[in-house]
Amino acid sequence: MKRIAVLASGGDAPGMNACIRAVVRSALHHGLSASGVLHGYRGLIEGEFREFSTGDVSNIIQRGGSILFSARSEAFQTVEGRAEAARNLRDRSIDGLIVIGGNGSFRGADAIAREQGIAVVGVPATIDNDVWGTDYTIGYDTAVNTALDSVDRIKDTAASHERVFIVEVMGRSAGFIALEVGVGSGAEAILLPETPTDVSALAALITERILNGRRSSIIICAEGDENGGARAVASELKTVHGIDSQVTVLGHVQRGGSPTTSDRVLASKLGWAAVDALCSGAAPCMVGEVSRRIVRHPLADSWTFVKEIDTELVKLAPLI
Amino acid sequence: MKRIAVLASGGDAPGMNACIRAVVRSALHHGLSASGVLHGYRGLIEGEFREFSTGDVSNIIQRGGSILFSARSEAFQTVEGRAEAARNLRDRSIDGLIVIGGNGSFRGADAIAREQGIAVVGVPATIDNDVWGTDYTIGYDTAVNTALDSVDRIKDTAASHERVFIVEVMGRSAGFIALEVGVGSGAEAILLPETPTDVSALAALITERILNGRRSSIIICAEGDENGGARAVASELKTVHGIDSQVTVLGHVQRGGSPTTSDRVLASKLGWAAVDALCSGAAPCMVGEVSRRIVRHPLADSWTFVKEIDTELVKLAPLI
Amino acid sequence: MKRIAVLASGGDAPGMNACIRAVVRSALHHGLSASGVLHGYRGLIEGEFREFSTGDVSNIIQRGGSILFSARSEAFQTVEGRAEAARNLRDRSIDGLIVIGGNGSFRGADAIAREQGIAVVGVPATIDNDVWGTDYTIGYDTAVNTALDSVDRIKDTAASHERVFIVEVMGRSAGFIALEVGVGSGAEAILLPETPTDVSALAALITERILNGRRSSIIICAEGDENGGARAVASELKTVHGIDSQVTVLGHVQRGGSPTTSDRVLASKLGWAAVDALCSGAAPCMVGEVSRRIVRHPLADSWTFVKEIDTELVKLAPLI
Amino acid sequence: MKRIAVLASGGDAPGMNACIRAVVRSALHHGLSASGVLHGYRGLIEGEFREFSTGDVSNIIQRGGSILFSARSEAFQTVEGRAEAARNLRDRSIDGLIVIGGNGSFRGADAIAREQGIAVVGVPATIDNDVWGTDYTIGYDTAVNTALDSVDRIKDTAASHERVFIVEVMGRSAGFIALEVGVGSGAEAILLPETPTDVSALAALITERILNGRRSSIIICAEGDENGGARAVASELKTVHGIDSQVTVLGHVQRGGSPTTSDRVLASKLGWAAVDALCSGAAPCMVGEVSRRIVRHPLADSWTFVKEIDTELVKLAPLI
Repeated sequence: MKRIAVLASGGDAPGMNACIRAVVRSALHHGLSASGVLHGYRGLIEGEFREFSTGDVSNIIQRGGSILFSARSEAFQTVEGRAEAARNLRDRSIDGLIVIGGNGSFRGADAIAREQGIAVVGVPATIDNDVWGTDYTIGYDTAVNTALDSVDRIKDTAASHERVFIVEVMGRSAGFIALEVGVGSGAEAILLPETPTDVSALAALITERILNGRRSSIIICAEGDENGGARAVASELKTVHGIDSQVTVLGHVQRGGSPTTSDRVLASKLGWAAVDALCSGAAPCMVGEVSRRIVRHPLADSWTFVKEIDTELVKLAPLI
Repeated sequence: MKRIAVLASGGDAPGMNACIRAVVRSALHHGLSASGVLHGYRGLIEGEFREFSTGDVSNIIQRGGSILFSARSEAFQTVEGRAEAARNLRDRSIDGLIVIGGNGSFRGADAIAREQGIAVVGVPATIDNDVWGTDYTIGYDTAVNTALDSVDRIKDTAASHERVFIVEVMGRSAGFIALEVGVGSGAEAILLPETPTDVSALAALITERILNGRRSSIIICAEGDENGGARAVASELKTVHGIDSQVTVLGHVQRGGSPTTSDRVLASKLGWAAVDALCSGAAPCMVGEVSRRIVRHPLADSWTFVKEIDTELVKLAPLI
Repeated sequence: MKRIAVLASGGDAPGMNACIRAVVRSALHHGLSASGVLHGYRGLIEGEFREFSTGDVSNIIQRGGSILFSARSEAFQTVEGRAEAARNLRDRSIDGLIVIGGNGSFRGADAIAREQGIAVVGVPATIDNDVWGTDYTIGYDTAVNTALDSVDRIKDTAASHERVFIVEVMGRSAGFIALEVGVGSGAEAILLPETPTDVSALAALITERILNGRRSSIIICAEGDENGGARAVASELKTVHGIDSQVTVLGHVQRGGSPTTSDRVLASKLGWAAVDALCSGAAPCMVGEVSRRIVRHPLADSWTFVKEIDTELVKLAPLI
Repeated sequence: MKRIAVLASGGDAPGMNACIRAVVRSALHHGLSASGVLHGYRGLIEGEFREFSTGDVSNIIQRGGSILFSARSEAFQTVEGRAEAARNLRDRSIDGLIVIGGNGSFRGADAIAREQGIAVVGVPATIDNDVWGTDYTIGYDTAVNTALDSVDRIKDTAASHERVFIVEVMGRSAGFIALEVGVGSGAEAILLPETPTDVSALAALITERILNGRRSSIIICAEGDENGGARAVASELKTVHGIDSQVTVLGHVQRGGSPTTSDRVLASKLGWAAVDALCSGAAPCMVGEVSRRIVRHPLADSWTFVKEIDTELVKLAPLI
């Protein structure tokens, strides 16, 4: 192992820069050269490589976004695209590739590893936390805190407005963000993709609260909830039950911002672990942290197994 | 003047608590008793009065929302409602009323003053900043900073996504929030109610940026823009010009949160000034701050005259 | 078990209010009455009990500080004081006591349990994270993020000032805060109580950086570092090595502020777990969370065993 | 006017980057070339010029610190140093220089203008706000909000600790920061350089509060207070009056962080105004904003006249 490259892929997640920094510093510490690939797999195919020194990753640990510009690529989803990408790596004598991203990015990483024999290590980074094999993904803690800060602000004004507020948070088809934001904000209800959402029961809860003199209710709704998100729930509350509500869709705000300490520390550890996995011949694999220990898994495990939300917390949520 | 009452009315604005605190403390300093009225004009009609001591307003200067629960009242829009409210004040020997709110609340204040001879002072508090007679309204500075923080987060991720982001901010029919957020975020375009919005020109700007290799564009859109807000603009960009964009409507997030220093200081000064106006027999009037001096105006001036946005800044915005 | 009481003890930790809220709500859910005790053990001796309903803990989950006013008590360190406290509990037919605090508070809890047969459950809450038996204590995550935010600000200005900045963080005799803040900020050195601090080696590192054209260095120093804290290190750097540095002691800023999501969720779970432990006859004990599972330990374990910092991370810190 | 250069000088102030951005964009808009000078006047002497395009100032409007690295220079305080600096400007055919900084930097600007005939425009940027000729300096609003956020955190914990907290804020020999932070935090006392500080009266106030059952007091102390700052006051409180207090010196934290909206907008306007002043032959001068209008003054006015704090607010502070 002499030369490695690193790229960020898929949706942005705060902490990606901290991870890139750790990868570059770790590689240089091990005597390897490190290149950054711009624009994810697309840049891998189009040859957008930049050799990095320590100075290139200086003062980025606290920055949101990604200096490598995470991106999506359709070309990489073809065998030809991956062959072109592998050729670019070989032309530059790059022996190992680190892919920072989520499940979708890991599928691409697995494909190029199998087809082209490239040594690839995946580092789980997505605000959705929906990657099996690691307790948390890079970016999740920041996204949850950003969303919670917004809900706190809405709560400030909810009492006066005497309204039902439905706040939709991200998470794709998983409820990790919604669950923690719901518990952390003391929400009256949390609508998750993993559990059936009964809008009639929700309407009854709201009505009971109003009868008890509670003027406002906060509902946290995962974008992947099977009812179709906050707007669909609001619509059903209105048309079926005659209950007005106010919808806020937090949206891309959740993908940005300076990463929390946890995200920076996790990103730094996993960046190191990824280089370590390459150096010790463990690739192809993904790295993760489980019960505060670094682990390695086959890339395919990350999407074959489904990471489950904390079902205990789901049960406790309405009580605490 | 022996007894005064204070209420908050209309949409919540950060800093209302700081103002309530200053009103109570100033009143007590002048030897007056001070009552808080819950739920705005509705509570005035329904008799929700609480006599306040210094301790009741302790440790609230930094809190968002309003301990008096700002509210809207339809009953107060009738002569009968206002007569009932005046009766409640007289029954409690309350000589002066301070109304913290925006234009709409000032109309109500003016009506009860004219019809019932109540000594009323209005304190301008609304995130929209659309009250004539004061450089800034309480809550505006906080709302602008909250919105800007969200736009900063969106910018973090915009470059990677290579997309057009349209962020809709509040402001009712005025562009104060949009203009400052647009300049403060370095947005590529700012869509204001006060200026004609040419979606074709916007489309041309975006297209030119893409041709120049600029991968993302941030557009700030006032909710009151004559095109109908961010979603309408996005729809026209798509259907007429074939340009995809991503919409974020910041919504009620902008009404909450701990007030900025400027809002707390302004709220404290105006709270004092309102009590001072009552004590010196200047009611009915509104108080404001212009060029850092406290001023008093007839209540009706606040909606008769239109406060103008900074037209110089509108012109400079695309250049700086 | 019919009646329980809850108090907060020792230094404030963000999340204490979220825990109090969960204790009260959980108790009521189990059909118990719940009293809050003001001013910690002192209030327990002096009889400062308040019976709480759900409304009393409404809208506090996001607040820093403690509505029960955490405090320290010398009287409770005597057998007589604890006997008086037990009498107060019995007089009110309170069957169980929940103590939210750190090691020192748990010693008091253990003493009143042994001497007076009171059913006590300890909930670990301290920004220092120095309680054995739980991965994290309530308040730690918030304190670390607060400190990191300050270090980020100092870093903004460090490059221009071309100086060595030594930032002292809290943690008592443990380096938990310093280690995470150091890694999270990408600090050039982290001075911990758990590892020998060689100021000469630090001076050599700084000098080497200057020779390499790196204009500024950030040093994170735990208050419990064996050299005596940031000022002592700065003094030795100056007098022995002729190196100027700028000291910032973050201080009590780290104890306040709205808790992070992690702290609110942890506090809510442990509040529930504490009531559950009382109800199931597990008292006296402490509750904690290890590898995301609720655990119970004898109170004495919390100070008999020493919680260790992440020695792997200590080794990695200079490299990543 | 064909070529201009811009530098930042003195202590860092949030918003400097927004100003640099506006200067560069405004210059290019006027058809001028724009160079950044690194490391302030030192770089001017040592020839550290970088020609800037729009892309070089892209995505910096929200960043703290300064991409030009503000610095101090002893050489520039000599006639020879300034002659060398002027030579560097002429060698590069640079016709105009924009200096972003405070009073001290303006003295240097004035000297090189008088001695060497350089067209210089000063833009007031310092967190201290102690520059005559502009209502606010760039960086002041951010510093005040940063300091206030820290005081809010300390307040969270103050009640429990039942202590006197003395928080020292920056401001050099002026009390602008202390006054607004004091009013904004509802502090019990504010110690300013502009008013005599009577520690005995302060002790009496604290004692009276304790007698009235108020457990904690927050004192805001300007670093330039004539008593010598927070530590000196604490020492006198202890030795003369036997009152314990807890000191926090906020320090360099106040110089960093992402600028507030007000600072970004002010910086953008003044950056434009500086280029405009150069283009219209108004140099040498400083630009500022007074009552929301752009103004120009002779550079020397900025230190000849003394900007006064709001004496009305000083009087009101203890009452509101």
